[in-house]
Amino acid sequence: MQTNPLGKIALKMTLADDDQENSAIAARARECGYRVCTGKVGSMDLQNIIGTIETMARKSGVVGDGVVDQHALYHAVYECCSGFMRGNLILGGTLRTLGSRFAIVRGKIPGKGQNEWIAAAMYGTIGSPSKGFEHEAAGLGIIHI
Amino acid sequence: MQTNPLGKIALKMTLADDDQENSAIAARARECGYRVCTGKVGSMDLQNIIGTIETMARKSGVVGDGVVDQHALYHAVYECCSGFMRGNLILGGTLRTLGSRFAIVRGKIPGKGQNEWIAAAMYGTIGSPSKGFEHEAAGLGIIHI
Amino acid sequence: MQTNPLGKIALKMTLADDDQENSAIAARARECGYRVCTGKVGSMDLQNIIGTIETMARKSGVVGDGVVDQHALYHAVYECCSGFMRGNLILGGTLRTLGSRFAIVRGKIPGKGQNEWIAAAMYGTIGSPSKGFEHEAAGLGIIHI
Amino acid sequence: MQTNPLGKIALKMTLADDDQENSAIAARARECGYRVCTGKVGSMDLQNIIGTIETMARKSGVVGDGVVDQHALYHAVYECCSGFMRGNLILGGTLRTLGSRFAIVRGKIPGKGQNEWIAAAMYGTIGSPSKGFEHEAAGLGIIHI
Amino acid sequence: MQTNPLGKIALKMTLADDDQENSAIAARARECGYRVCTGKVGSMDLQNIIGTIETMARKSGVVGDGVVDQHALYHAVYECCSGFMRGNLILGGTLRTLGSRFAIVRGKIPGKGQNEWIAAAMYGTIGSPSKGFEHEAAGLGIIHI
Amino acid sequence: MQTNPLGKIALKMTLADDDQENSAIAARARECGYRVCTGKVGSMDLQNIIGTIETMARKSGVVGDGVVDQHALYHAVYECCSGFMRGNLILGGTLRTLGSRFAIVRGKIPGKGQNEWIAAAMYGTIGSPSKGFEHEAAGLGIIHI
Repeated sequence: MQTNPLGKIALKMTLADDDQENSAIAARARECGYRVCTGKVGSMDLQNIIGTIETMARKSGVVGDGVVDQHALYHAVYECCSGFMRGNLILGGTLRTLGSRFAIVRGKIPGKGQNEWIAAAMYGTIGSPSKGFEHEAAGLGIIHI
Repeated sequence: MQTNPLGKIALKMTLADDDQENSAIAARARECGYRVCTGKVGSMDLQNIIGTIETMARKSGVVGDGVVDQHALYHAVYECCSGFMRGNLILGGTLRTLGSRFAIVRGKIPGKGQNEWIAAAMYGTIGSPSKGFEHEAAGLGIIHI
Repeated sequence: MQTNPLGKIALKMTLADDDQENSAIAARARECGYRVCTGKVGSMDLQNIIGTIETMARKSGVVGDGVVDQHALYHAVYECCSGFMRGNLILGGTLRTLGSRFAIVRGKIPGKGQNEWIAAAMYGTIGSPSKGFEHEAAGLGIIHI
Repeated sequence: MQTNPLGKIALKMTLADDDQENSAIAARARECGYRVCTGKVGSMDLQNIIGTIETMARKSGVVGDGVVDQHALYHAVYECCSGFMRGNLILGGTLRTLGSRFAIVRGKIPGKGQNEWIAAAMYGTIGSPSKGFEHEAAGLGIIHI
Repeated sequence: MQTNPLGKIALKMTLADDDQENSAIAARARECGYRVCTGKVGSMDLQNIIGTIETMARKSGVVGDGVVDQHALYHAVYECCSGFMRGNLILGGTLRTLGSRFAIVRGKIPGKGQNEWIAAAMYGTIGSPSKGFEHEAAGLGIIHI
Repeated sequence: MQTNPLGKIALKMTLADDDQENSAIAARARECGYRVCTGKVGSMDLQNIIGTIETMARKSGVVGDGVVDQHALYHAVYECCSGFMRGNLILGGTLRTLGSRFAIVRGKIPGKGQNEWIAAAMYGTIGSPSKGFEHEAAGLGIIHI
C-alpha cells in the first residue's frame, strides 16, 4: 500500500467529496501508522477556529499534554491559517468569515528518520458574511514534533 | 456527473499521485466546461515560478491576451504563492527553494451566475536548498475574471 | 473634456478642499460615464470602516447585488485600507484610530477595452485616539470587475 | 492663502495632470515655507526607486546630511512604498514593475508647534512588465523630523 | 564610565535577573543623561500592552505631551511589539498571550549629534494561554525624537 | 549556579560589551549543558546572513545533519531575523544593510521536560548603507527541536 506524506493525506481529507470519503482516507492513514483527526470549523473569529482545532487534536489523542506537542500543534495550525488567509490573520476585523473542513495528521515522513512531524490542513471558503459572497480557500502547515 | 468547484479541481490536480491521475482530473474538468492547464515548477527565484506559470496559462489558452485576463491570472497566482509561502513572498532571499506541481482552472462557479473565475493551486515542497531538508506546502488563489 | 483614469479621480475626490470641490469632481466623472460614490468614515474598528463603505457603494448603485460586484468591491476596499495602513490591517488592536474621506469610482479605463474596473481611495488621518496625535494617510485599491 | 498639510500637498503634486500643474503646486508650497522636491521613478528594483528618491531629496536640499534627516527621509519613503505596494515591498521578485511620479514635502504642520515633519507621496502604476498590464497605485508616508 | 547606546541599555534592563539589577542599570543610565522608565505588562490584548507602556512613559516624564514625543513613542513601542511578535501584531486573535518586562530609554546617541532618540525594549514570553506553553520572545524599537 | 533560559543566554551573549564577556557567558552556558555558538555577520543580502549562521551552527556541532535539526535551526534563525527586521525580511531590496553579533543556544528548558529547544539571537544595527545612518536592532527566535 502506498504511503503518502502526511501533508498530502491531510489535504486529501479536507478535499473529500463527503464524510464517507473523508473517513476512508483517515482509516487508511491510521493503518499506515499516522495519528489523525478531522472536523469542521466556521467563525468570524480566528481565535475560535484555532481553539476548536487545538481542542479536537488534544481530545482525539493526535497530540498529548506536553509542551512540545502543544507548541508544534500551534505552529502547524497557525501556518495553515496563514496560508488559508494568505498572510493576513484577521477575519471579522476585515469583515470576512471562514468555514472549512480541517484535518490534522501526525507521524513519520517516509525516508526521513524516526522523528515525527505534524500537518494541519484546511479547505473551505472565506469571504463576506453574506451567503454566496465567499469563495474557496485552502491552507497547509507542517512542522517537526 | 458531479461538478466540483474550480479551486477543488485545481488542488486535486496538484495532489494527484501520478501524471495519469492528474490528466484524468483535467480531462473530466474540461468535459464540464472548465479551461485547465497544469505543470511543474521549481526555483529559488519566485519571479521564475510566476513567469513560468503565466506563460503556460497563456500558451494553453486558459487566459487570453486581454488586460483583465492577465490581471486576474496574476492575482490568482500571486495569492496562491502567498498561501504556499504563508505570507512571505521571498524564496532565495531567505535561503529557501520551492518545487511544486501547479494547476490553473477557469470557468463558472455552479450556482453563481454567468461570470467566470480563475483558480491557481500549487502543491509541493519548500525549504533549504539541500536534498531532504524541504517539507510539504500548498496554496490556492482564486478571483473573478 | 479630459478623462482621467478612475484611481486618479477617486484620489482627487478624497483630497478635495471642501464638499463643493468633492461634488464637482464627482459630477464631472459621472458625465464621463463613471459611477461614483463618496463619504466620510471614522472608527477604531476596521470592520466598521469596510462595512460602511460597502453599504454606501451598494446603496448608491456603484455596485449591484451580484457576487462579482461584491467581490471586486471588497478587494478594492481591502487593498485601499492596506495601503492607508501600510500593510497592517489593525486599528484599535494597535491602539490607533482612522478618520478619512473615501471615494469609489467604477468604469472603463480609457484605451483598455470594454471591461470595467473599480477603484477605492481614502485620504484622512490615522493615529493615537487623542486629538492632535494623528497624522495624514492615504490609500488606493483598484481591480477589474 | 490656504495652507494645506504637507501630505496633501505631496499627493496633489503627484496627481498633477502635467508638469506645469506640478510645478505650480510646488511653487505655492515653497511660498508657504515648505521645502519641496519632485520627480519621476520607474524600475523593477525597489532599491533603485528608494535610492533615486533619497538622492533627489538630498540634492534638492529637502533633507540635509544629518542622521536624523536621513532616518526620517528613509522612513517616509519606506512607508510611502509600503502603501503603494500595499504591504509587500517586492517588485521584480514577484514579477512586477513600478512607474510613478513622487513628491517630498517638508515643513511644520499648521497648529502642531515648531517641529517639522516630512511627507513622501507617489502616484503612478504597478503591474506586470508588459505595456498595458499595469494599473494605478498610490502611497503616502509621513513622519516627524 | 562606559556609555552604552540606548537600545542596548533598554534590552539589558529587560533581561535583568531581578528588579535590583534592573534598577541598577536604570540608575547608571540616568547618570549618563538618559531618561528611563521600566515595568511589566501582560495581556491577550495588544491594545492594553501598548496603552500601559505609553501611559508609564508619559507619567515617568520620558516623553512629554507634545505630538512629536507621542508619535516617536508610539513608533518605538509599535516596532518593539512587531519584533517581539515577529511581524504579526495579533495576540488574542490568534489565541496567544504576552507577558514581558519592558524598558523605554531616551537620549542622545554618542557621536551622533544633538538629536535625541527613543528606544523601547521588551523581553518575556508569548504563547498559548495555558501555563507552561509559552516561550521566550524579545523586541527592540528605536526612532529619532 | 543559576540557569537562565536559553533565549536569555543567547540575547546576553549578543549584548556582551566585548568578546571576553561574550565568551564567558558561552562558557557558563556550556557548563550548564547547553550547546552554544556565536559570531558576527554583516551583509545587504539576508541570504548571506542566514547561510553564515546556519554554517557556523553546523560546524560548531550545535546542530547535527538530521532534517529535524536543520528545520528547527532554520525556523529559529528565520524568526530571529523577522524580529530583527520587524516582519519585513528584505535588506538590500529596500536599500538597507545589517551588521550584528549572533548567538545560537540549544538545550533543555528548566522545568519543561526532556525535549530540547533552540534559540537564535541577534543584536546589532540596521539601516542605510552609509556609515552613521544605521541604528540598533535585535531579534530572538526559539523553537523545539
